[in-house]
Amino acid sequence: MTVKVAINGYGTIGKRVADAVSLQDDMEIVGVTKTRPTFEAKMAVSKGYDLYIAVPENIPKFEEAGIPVKGTLDDLLGICDVVVDCTPGKEGVNNLEKYRKFGVKAIFQGGEKHENIGMSFNSLSNYQENLGVDYTRVVSCNTTGLARTIYPLVKEFGVKKVYATMVRRGPDPNNSKKGPVNAIVPVLKVPSHHGPDLKTVIHDLDIDTMAVAVPTTLMHLHCNVVLLGREATSEEVIRLWENTPRVAFVHGKEGVDSTAQIMEMAKDMKRDRSDLNEISVWKDGVHVVGSTLYYYQAIHQESDVVPENIDCIRAMFRLTDDNMASIKKTNEALGIE
Amino acid sequence: MTVKVAINGYGTIGKRVADAVSLQDDMEIVGVTKTRPTFEAKMAVSKGYDLYIAVPENIPKFEEAGIPVKGTLDDLLGICDVVVDCTPGKEGVNNLEKYRKFGVKAIFQGGEKHENIGMSFNSLSNYQENLGVDYTRVVSCNTTGLARTIYPLVKEFGVKKVYATMVRRGPDPNNSKKGPVNAIVPVLKVPSHHGPDLKTVIHDLDIDTMAVAVPTTLMHLHCNVVLLGREATSEEVIRLWENTPRVAFVHGKEGVDSTAQIMEMAKDMKRDRSDLNEISVWKDGVHVVGSTLYYYQAIHQESDVVPENIDCIRAMFRLTDDNMASIKKTNEALGIE
Amino acid sequence: MTVKVAINGYGTIGKRVADAVSLQDDMEIVGVTKTRPTFEAKMAVSKGYDLYIAVPENIPKFEEAGIPVKGTLDDLLGICDVVVDCTPGKEGVNNLEKYRKFGVKAIFQGGEKHENIGMSFNSLSNYQENLGVDYTRVVSCNTTGLARTIYPLVKEFGVKKVYATMVRRGPDPNNSKKGPVNAIVPVLKVPSHHGPDLKTVIHDLDIDTMAVAVPTTLMHLHCNVVLLGREATSEEVIRLWENTPRVAFVHGKEGVDSTAQIMEMAKDMKRDRSDLNEISVWKDGVHVVGSTLYYYQAIHQESDVVPENIDCIRAMFRLTDDNMASIKKTNEALGIE
Amino acid sequence: MTVKVAINGYGTIGKRVADAVSLQDDMEIVGVTKTRPTFEAKMAVSKGYDLYIAVPENIPKFEEAGIPVKGTLDDLLGICDVVVDCTPGKEGVNNLEKYRKFGVKAIFQGGEKHENIGMSFNSLSNYQENLGVDYTRVVSCNTTGLARTIYPLVKEFGVKKVYATMVRRGPDPNNSKKGPVNAIVPVLKVPSHHGPDLKTVIHDLDIDTMAVAVPTTLMHLHCNVVLLGREATSEEVIRLWENTPRVAFVHGKEGVDSTAQIMEMAKDMKRDRSDLNEISVWKDGVHVVGSTLYYYQAIHQESDVVPENIDCIRAMFRLTDDNMASIKKTNEALGIE
Repeated sequence: MTVKVAINGYGTIGKRVADAVSLQDDMEIVGVTKTRPTFEAKMAVSKGYDLYIAVPENIPKFEEAGIPVKGTLDDLLGICDVVVDCTPGKEGVNNLEKYRKFGVKAIFQGGEKHENIGMSFNSLSNYQENLGVDYTRVVSCNTTGLARTIYPLVKEFGVKKVYATMVRRGPDPNNSKKGPVNAIVPVLKVPSHHGPDLKTVIHDLDIDTMAVAVPTTLMHLHCNVVLLGREATSEEVIRLWENTPRVAFVHGKEGVDSTAQIMEMAKDMKRDRSDLNEISVWKDGVHVVGSTLYYYQAIHQESDVVPENIDCIRAMFRLTDDNMASIKKTNEALGIE
Repeated sequence: MTVKVAINGYGTIGKRVADAVSLQDDMEIVGVTKTRPTFEAKMAVSKGYDLYIAVPENIPKFEEAGIPVKGTLDDLLGICDVVVDCTPGKEGVNNLEKYRKFGVKAIFQGGEKHENIGMSFNSLSNYQENLGVDYTRVVSCNTTGLARTIYPLVKEFGVKKVYATMVRRGPDPNNSKKGPVNAIVPVLKVPSHHGPDLKTVIHDLDIDTMAVAVPTTLMHLHCNVVLLGREATSEEVIRLWENTPRVAFVHGKEGVDSTAQIMEMAKDMKRDRSDLNEISVWKDGVHVVGSTLYYYQAIHQESDVVPENIDCIRAMFRLTDDNMASIKKTNEALGIE
Repeated sequence: MTVKVAINGYGTIGKRVADAVSLQDDMEIVGVTKTRPTFEAKMAVSKGYDLYIAVPENIPKFEEAGIPVKGTLDDLLGICDVVVDCTPGKEGVNNLEKYRKFGVKAIFQGGEKHENIGMSFNSLSNYQENLGVDYTRVVSCNTTGLARTIYPLVKEFGVKKVYATMVRRGPDPNNSKKGPVNAIVPVLKVPSHHGPDLKTVIHDLDIDTMAVAVPTTLMHLHCNVVLLGREATSEEVIRLWENTPRVAFVHGKEGVDSTAQIMEMAKDMKRDRSDLNEISVWKDGVHVVGSTLYYYQAIHQESDVVPENIDCIRAMFRLTDDNMASIKKTNEALGIE
Repeated sequence: MTVKVAINGYGTIGKRVADAVSLQDDMEIVGVTKTRPTFEAKMAVSKGYDLYIAVPENIPKFEEAGIPVKGTLDDLLGICDVVVDCTPGKEGVNNLEKYRKFGVKAIFQGGEKHENIGMSFNSLSNYQENLGVDYTRVVSCNTTGLARTIYPLVKEFGVKKVYATMVRRGPDPNNSKKGPVNAIVPVLKVPSHHGPDLKTVIHDLDIDTMAVAVPTTLMHLHCNVVLLGREATSEEVIRLWENTPRVAFVHGKEGVDSTAQIMEMAKDMKRDRSDLNEISVWKDGVHVVGSTLYYYQAIHQESDVVPENIDCIRAMFRLTDDNMASIKKTNEALGIE
């Protein structure tokens, strides 16, 4: 079976998921949607994606701009098996009824609330829960990053408590409207929503999170304290993560002293769009004292969830019931570790 | 007795301490030093401070620039009772021998190591330890900020453990050479040096710290988790800090949603140089769950240590043996809470 | 006569104009307006300004917050002679009808269009045009900055053409929502609107402007090329500006190498709110080749128009018909050059 | 003939030139140098480049880090025909004597002074001057950008005068040490060095430039005013540049409103390292009034000179004497316009 995938919202996440789907042999893109005739719309067409318009009254604007249009969102929903909803955060849920009406499965992104969708997804921690479901959400970039490093700790050492502080990039790189320019902005609701969100994919975890936004566009950075279930060594933890998919070490002593050098590395690795789908953990920043683990990890907010969306499609259509098999297949197709 | 105070290094901290000393009735400035004929040197003279040159071979440059010079650092050390060393971090210790030779007491700043000076100072937590000493250091802006909010917790509730994450401004506002511009830079040595530094003024505290630097100039922001010695409520903690000097609440719901608005408040309060000597704690960010306290505080790195330097002089000369009396006197003179 | 002044919109500009009016002996503040109970509203009350609410349905929110309210905007308009409208850009014009109805004079700010108000104001270049008028606008911070340095050139040398490139700060310092974070944003409409705007106060000037916005909050910086009416020397131009009010030189060789050091200077000068009402021109950046003048100037966007508002009130009420007399009086009251 | 190329300094420019050389059929990389065992050194090896060490005493550090070393810089100079010197600015000239001794040709970068090398290069404007020369320099990213858009104007319309204001990024994206963070920094030497630099490749041009540095890492942006030799229309200029290699239009109305969206476009185009070798001109920012042309262009400082280095090798070895043929060949190999 080749799953027919539609992308509703060909933006930061949508365009990356589209390209990732195109690299798999068990799924294909049947169309993507845009609302306005931007350079991204042009680019979609030049890559060979059929373009559907989510706001039909905007179709003449596309025609004026010389961008060929295949139809409306409704047309697209008529020909796909699953829609990956990458519309802006909190708007996705409004589409749920429409997807239901058309009888297509749907994956939402982390901007939507778990309660509104009823199920959440992470490739490593709860793939099996998602087998055959019709609607689910891939948790946010930050939550995905936490899940990737914490879930193996839960399995190997047990985890009594996590205190995580998320230092978040302000806007995405392609957004020149949003700030902050010269300020640090705390999330005053403490503990922040990130902790509960992680529990949707690692149930029974005890985690509290704090968060600030800062004037950078590149990556989020997490400062994490984990109270392990038993004493351990830094080496044990490092070895564990070396064997964890989609977690990769970076090294301060090799000159990777900030999120900027991580992004430079991704460029040098010739990754698609200079993305880095893996979570970057500073090897020389991993430190265990007794049973307390301290570590820093950096999250490429635009791309870490992309392979998760691919695995999620496999779980929903039961293309394989084995999450490690799906992870391996996706990673090979995308050239990631 | 009027203590004769010299400032070695009339820069970011030095000029503020000079002005603060000038506002006290039990001490006076007898001179300040500069190494180069910058606008700050001109400003010092225009404020009536006698100018001494730390690098004698530069004196002709001052003459060329039309800036009157009173003498050399040695001349200044001959006429003062105490020198406040505000030279760049890690350079101060090199002056210790000279101060000893001239028989003057000396206060160093947080850029120096405790081990090299032998004593450290915080007005609230260890004023008494510093009574009559000849050499000490006022701990750094970050450590001062931690001491102010944590010491009362130790006294009131007991503190089992502190996990603090410091989100540090990159450069000071008047430094346009230093970065980072678009990056988050972690301090990979974990736990970072801030924890041990705090123990120099609150002995026996159990604290571990992590830190990152971010592209902003305004303030540091701390995301703190404190395991208290007993259960408490947010209200109890707030009441405690309301009665703590040099700690002031800010309110997200009044529009103070970042370090930028705090600095705007300081401007509106017509504070000297728009400084904010108090530690700012977000009242609506204080949250106690059981015996675990979460809170955010912001530190104005250029000015929070200024009143501490004043109190420190009082302790060293035993102008008063009561730290709360000194704090009150300093605060009234500076117009702070 | 003491002119009774109301401030509609006690924000970035409004609060500064209020404080500046309070320092004059021929005018007084009778009240200021706010729409929401922020820290700025509290601060207004603590400074002794009567508070009026522009959006009457919000009055209960002020009561809840314990902020005393004197009345509504209509109440305030009933007791003032002139209202300084400092509401957000492009909203001011909507108030014009109301001001007319109440029979009060009104000053708008540079966010409003000249065409909508019918008159514009700059203290140096067209004070006399504004004598006795009922409605006018003080031109924007950028236009005010251009007028201050270019008008004397017009008088002294004649000006054939100005090419000005404005490098604009992104958001104001107290705005942590707006970007850009890591981008340069050009104003694609060329020549930009700044040129025509300057012609509203220096008629017949030939000027074309280009503009970009950049990730900083502190000041705008202009890179100006002026084709003078005759050959001149750098010294002549410098001497001219030395005798021009509200233009002040800064010096790269004294360490003032960016807008950041200019703001540091303003702090050291103990200016109110660390503002700098004068336009800063780099003396070592003034360069004349033949009859072409190149220079850099920096504009403190939050405060350069403040003294202009004061002078504007004097012109409208003919407190003096001599602009230089008003400028001198205002400058002395505000402690500026 | 296959020209054997060495890269001395495998950093920001060096690694890009290395990859670009590898894509040509008339030249090949025989080795690259590094001084320290960073992630870039590892990456060079993983790409198959032989690694030579410029500072021989550092060889043990590479061995410790497990990075295989082929030899020293001297070894490399013994086996190459030409060395592309990409060492940090102003250091390159110190290598000239050594290159001479080894009898290899050498290309320097824009950080070196024209006077020290004796010749400069731009593919479009003075390829022919460089035929067969032994030493030359590819002019800087900014100068290359100016040459690409101005040279065609000189040929087509004549150019009486250029006034260019360069708004420069602060540090490169992979540099988290350098500022400015919240400041605009003017280049006080006016006219700045960029004008004279352009004259090394377009002789007899009359150009004056001003420049500022701003807190962004992405691209430089030029605000240019050109006094053409005759009246023209915006359409004529646009048509001219449409037919100019390595100049590409971007469109504000398609959502490309800043340097950030240009970089996003380069990612979407799947360019190597997300680079953009072409100069980006905003089509809706080109404006001609009479004979005066205004336009904005953005320069990707890390990559625009890369194809120029390739063409420069061809000129030096006379692989072709026709610059347009070389440009076409290079562009096709690199997939650029």
